[in-house]
Amino acid sequence: MNETMAITMRPIGVVNTDATEIPRHWSVSDVEGRLEIDPQYAAGLSDIQPGSKIVVLFCFHKSPAFDPARHLRQTPPHREGPLGVFSICSPRRPNPIGLSVLEVLEIQGTVIHVRGLDMLDGTPILDIKPYIEGRQDCPSYADDR
Amino acid sequence: MNETMAITMRPIGVVNTDATEIPRHWSVSDVEGRLEIDPQYAAGLSDIQPGSKIVVLFCFHKSPAFDPARHLRQTPPHREGPLGVFSICSPRRPNPIGLSVLEVLEIQGTVIHVRGLDMLDGTPILDIKPYIEGRQDCPSYADDR
Repeated sequence: MNETMAITMRPIGVVNTDATEIPRHWSVSDVEGRLEIDPQYAAGLSDIQPGSKIVVLFCFHKSPAFDPARHLRQTPPHREGPLGVFSICSPRRPNPIGLSVLEVLEIQGTVIHVRGLDMLDGTPILDIKPYIEGRQDCPSYADDR
Repeated sequence: MNETMAITMRPIGVVNTDATEIPRHWSVSDVEGRLEIDPQYAAGLSDIQPGSKIVVLFCFHKSPAFDPARHLRQTPPHREGPLGVFSICSPRRPNPIGLSVLEVLEIQGTVIHVRGLDMLDGTPILDIKPYIEGRQDCPSYADDR
């Protein structure tokens, strides 16, 4: 294992929302907003459908640096005891990557209107993927159904 | 949007598997292997349960550099026409992050035995998250059920 290997990523876009109260998790959020994707990636958005779900990977850009002594086990809100960081969705993680499953409402150019936001306004977006629950959803095999 | 912002990540561990034929996607894979996590993160693994599913984020470390002219739209295997990169799981993406949902078989120290691998032997692991389908699974709210 080469743990010192650095992997550099650059945002493909940014989250924009007028909401000031952001739920802690997409699974309990009805907040709407926009994913403003850099126009250089326009062609890559061509098959995202309104009404579908997408997986959005993003950077927890406001999180403090990961401190093993405090963050390897954390007590989530609404819980009594600590849990290991790899079993919770805390933004304080060794690599500050977040994952949200959002509902696509509408697409206008390179702006994706979504519902279910749990990201802050200004959050850098790293990737968008199709939401896949099993073999029946896999784009590579969908024709086999 | 500050697209020039660089976000640096470092592996928390590495994928180890003896399999030489790796399926293209976790949703169609029964391949077993091991997630070898750096011992410095041991405490963070404490609540991962055998039999559960986990989301593993990793780096497509063998992928060629993203070439917009060739990779913004790609034709997946088993498909006739191209699809936008953000609607498929291709390893050739603007940021080379992969996502797999794996079944936990057993945990020995900081080695997680898993089934469903679609990653190559030696793949750098960036994060592990709980697999959440809806509010009922959210660790922050599970006590509300």
